[in-house]
Amino acid sequence: MNEKEFLDELKEIDLLNQALKLQDWDIQTGMPEKANEDRSELNSYLYGLYFSKKIGPKIKEAIDYFPQHPEELSEVGQVVFEKVKENYELEHLVPEELMSALTAATSKAHGKWQEARASKQFSDFQSALTENIHITKQLIPYWRKEEKTDYDVLLNQYEPGMTVEILDQVFAQVKEGILSIRQTLKEKGKEPATDFLSRKMTKKQQKRFVVEVIKQLGYDFSRGRLDDTVHPFMIGISPNDARITTRWDEHDFKMAILGVIHEAGHGMYEQNIDLKYAHTPIYEGTSMGIHESQSLFNEIIVGSNRSFWKKQYPFFQECAEGTFDDVSFDDFYRSLKHTKSSLVRIEADSLTYPLHIIIRYEIEKMIFNEGLAVEKLPEVWNQKYEEYLGVRPENDLEGILQDVHWSGASFGYFPSYALGYMYAAQLYHAMGKDLAVDEILASDDYSSIREWMTEHIHQYGASRKPNQLIQDTTKEPLNPQYLIDYMEKIYFDVYGVEKTNSK
Amino acid sequence: MNEKEFLDELKEIDLLNQALKLQDWDIQTGMPEKANEDRSELNSYLYGLYFSKKIGPKIKEAIDYFPQHPEELSEVGQVVFEKVKENYELEHLVPEELMSALTAATSKAHGKWQEARASKQFSDFQSALTENIHITKQLIPYWRKEEKTDYDVLLNQYEPGMTVEILDQVFAQVKEGILSIRQTLKEKGKEPATDFLSRKMTKKQQKRFVVEVIKQLGYDFSRGRLDDTVHPFMIGISPNDARITTRWDEHDFKMAILGVIHEAGHGMYEQNIDLKYAHTPIYEGTSMGIHESQSLFNEIIVGSNRSFWKKQYPFFQECAEGTFDDVSFDDFYRSLKHTKSSLVRIEADSLTYPLHIIIRYEIEKMIFNEGLAVEKLPEVWNQKYEEYLGVRPENDLEGILQDVHWSGASFGYFPSYALGYMYAAQLYHAMGKDLAVDEILASDDYSSIREWMTEHIHQYGASRKPNQLIQDTTKEPLNPQYLIDYMEKIYFDVYGVEKTNSK
Repeated sequence: MNEKEFLDELKEIDLLNQALKLQDWDIQTGMPEKANEDRSELNSYLYGLYFSKKIGPKIKEAIDYFPQHPEELSEVGQVVFEKVKENYELEHLVPEELMSALTAATSKAHGKWQEARASKQFSDFQSALTENIHITKQLIPYWRKEEKTDYDVLLNQYEPGMTVEILDQVFAQVKEGILSIRQTLKEKGKEPATDFLSRKMTKKQQKRFVVEVIKQLGYDFSRGRLDDTVHPFMIGISPNDARITTRWDEHDFKMAILGVIHEAGHGMYEQNIDLKYAHTPIYEGTSMGIHESQSLFNEIIVGSNRSFWKKQYPFFQECAEGTFDDVSFDDFYRSLKHTKSSLVRIEADSLTYPLHIIIRYEIEKMIFNEGLAVEKLPEVWNQKYEEYLGVRPENDLEGILQDVHWSGASFGYFPSYALGYMYAAQLYHAMGKDLAVDEILASDDYSSIREWMTEHIHQYGASRKPNQLIQDTTKEPLNPQYLIDYMEKIYFDVYGVEKTNSK
Repeated sequence: MNEKEFLDELKEIDLLNQALKLQDWDIQTGMPEKANEDRSELNSYLYGLYFSKKIGPKIKEAIDYFPQHPEELSEVGQVVFEKVKENYELEHLVPEELMSALTAATSKAHGKWQEARASKQFSDFQSALTENIHITKQLIPYWRKEEKTDYDVLLNQYEPGMTVEILDQVFAQVKEGILSIRQTLKEKGKEPATDFLSRKMTKKQQKRFVVEVIKQLGYDFSRGRLDDTVHPFMIGISPNDARITTRWDEHDFKMAILGVIHEAGHGMYEQNIDLKYAHTPIYEGTSMGIHESQSLFNEIIVGSNRSFWKKQYPFFQECAEGTFDDVSFDDFYRSLKHTKSSLVRIEADSLTYPLHIIIRYEIEKMIFNEGLAVEKLPEVWNQKYEEYLGVRPENDLEGILQDVHWSGASFGYFPSYALGYMYAAQLYHAMGKDLAVDEILASDDYSSIREWMTEHIHQYGASRKPNQLIQDTTKEPLNPQYLIDYMEKIYFDVYGVEKTNSK
């Protein structure tokens, strides 16, 4: 074993993974419907080749060899080796029967979730969800390193270093902040008009606008592409190929335009990782939360910025070919930041969104750390929505059945969405010390923003943990106050609320 | 070794081939340009896995085992085994150095061909082409079974059973027939008007029309899709996934509309092979010529049919949203069949097209059987164009450099195009004995045409050789007279020539 052999093996693993990712992209962007079964066979065959290499004899050999001969690894090799070892330990310790059981359970649960959505009855999903939770609980001991609680173990799968202790504190602060802003808006705010948001803008018009905008933001179409899909996503297929997708609604331009700007943020992350990490597990986002910080920076920080829209609105009007000529810039801008309680997370605005995540977090924590009975979930869910958002689902479809994640046993994933938002606000604050962000967004050249993000976040890929990136870049650990201050600034502005000294 | 093991191994080989084909489709339909290098690495890795299995120990074992135990193979297994053996013998006898030399030479030649196209000088391509020919001549002894001449060996790579002896005879007959028709049209024909053919029809309008038409013809979109590309093609990725592609010109609707109908013919072939052959080398077209017969049946036989256009023209006019409202059906139909000598094969009309192929055939035969010196090629080419078509290229770009095939050492491929056309005419004649084709094409239901083709051609995949399919279906061997009669009928009709008794 030497470093070259080790890296060559990782490259083969990466190439198989690339093939799998291209297939996945294809499945989601227009594979013929009847090719589904053919494709499953192909996927499981290639996945078999991939996985058996990933935990195969060469990797095992490397894991035994290099700790005895650390001097044989270059700097990059050392970083890569640590990550490979971490992944290997997570994966090879788990008994194969348990992984097979999980695969079978989630596959079944996905079907049951869809049935339950059709009947709008949680009871149709209950036993499958119970089984997913049961198997996940059995997996936790194998995944555990030094985490204090069971749910900490799950959080760490998606956000290394994140704990219930931290989240309890930051989520309490965020929740209080949002509720306070909402209260102020209710008492003193002026609601923006939104009636023109549903005016027809064709897909072609929307696409012309948003493609130009994400190019300006730094998404590189020579190393990516934009396609239509049902559930939008970004996928990094190879180092020079980070593709994004969207869906379009001709009577809701916000959806695709902000959606594409969001996915472009993910894509820009993957397009700017240092190529020295190519073909290794370092060439990817370091966590779900940091990945989401990049997409939400684009979508919410840039996409809520008055200077940005002031600059873009004439071009937007031009693309819309007259449809918005009677709407003043101020009315247009304010309409984008209208806030209103909603039942469905993915339809939530940027003020209420974190409350959806906090509810999901509290419930997941109750399931794994406090033994909450599965049959009680809908009631707990509905009560929390009433309490935090003042709305109560009329059925389970618009309540606890709304998201796919639990059917895939992705417990611990949801907090990433809110973490990404908090990171984005904190990064924006740090960026503001180096750059005149508003001025840049009012100008013809946004490149310094993308470059700042590459310098501080993108380039490192998975070589640095989320908390290290945030600490190094912002000189402090995760601090939710930046998000609260940011939301207050945006919404008080849009709703015409004078900032008082009480804060 | 048993049949199941053998078929399982073939399935793995097929799955790797599927992955390669999806990548190929992706490369040609919009892979980001800078992903090119990444993708080459992935392709060569997967091709390595694929090829080493294809000529690997399990296949070798099967080839040694089953001739001793033929009773262990089912009927399908027997057919599959014969094909695998045939491929294996073709591939594993060739020295690896020679194949590598060919790969290196064609890769270089492709670049040189592109350079030569830029300079319009054959001399820039000459030495690379000489090398391709040199290596091909070294390969011929390894490929040879019982073929009489060297060029017969090359023909057989693409059209099993085809010989110089047959082609000399049929091409002489076709050439004479075309020249005679052209002479008659020149003397007695009335040229159709074509000025309106360049009227603008948007991609969206063209697409609406042609998608509906190929659905009616029997292309199944639930097992296929249509994408944009630079060089149109059909690719069968998996048994339920045969994709087609096209390019569009808004001022030449004929190109994409007839192009898509053409590719749909290839797709319909692959969509209707008996699924019992799935995941074996039988699940594909039996030869280039038969494949082309299916696309040309669609494009030329259906696409030249007066009843077909009579039925479709109102819908075409509707799709064009007024652009052709002033053009009578008769003028429209006649314009489609205008004929005129051209220098470039892919721009040729359906009367002069075979002459382009015959020229290429005669030259290839001179190279391989008569030792024609490479430096003489442009002069030979230009003379033949002058003699057969009455036009002479002004430079090599519009002459001998026009096609990519020789840069890839695909010698022997060109005749397939003309064979496909002759097969299509002969199949059309046979079909006419069973079906009232004109009436069907005038109706709302074309399905009996597709079903006839599936019954006689599609279902067999590569389990029957081209000559057997033609013999079984038409009760005679390849007979070029059907093509000549067909062309005469169509063009005399369009050009208003009375058929005399002289014929």
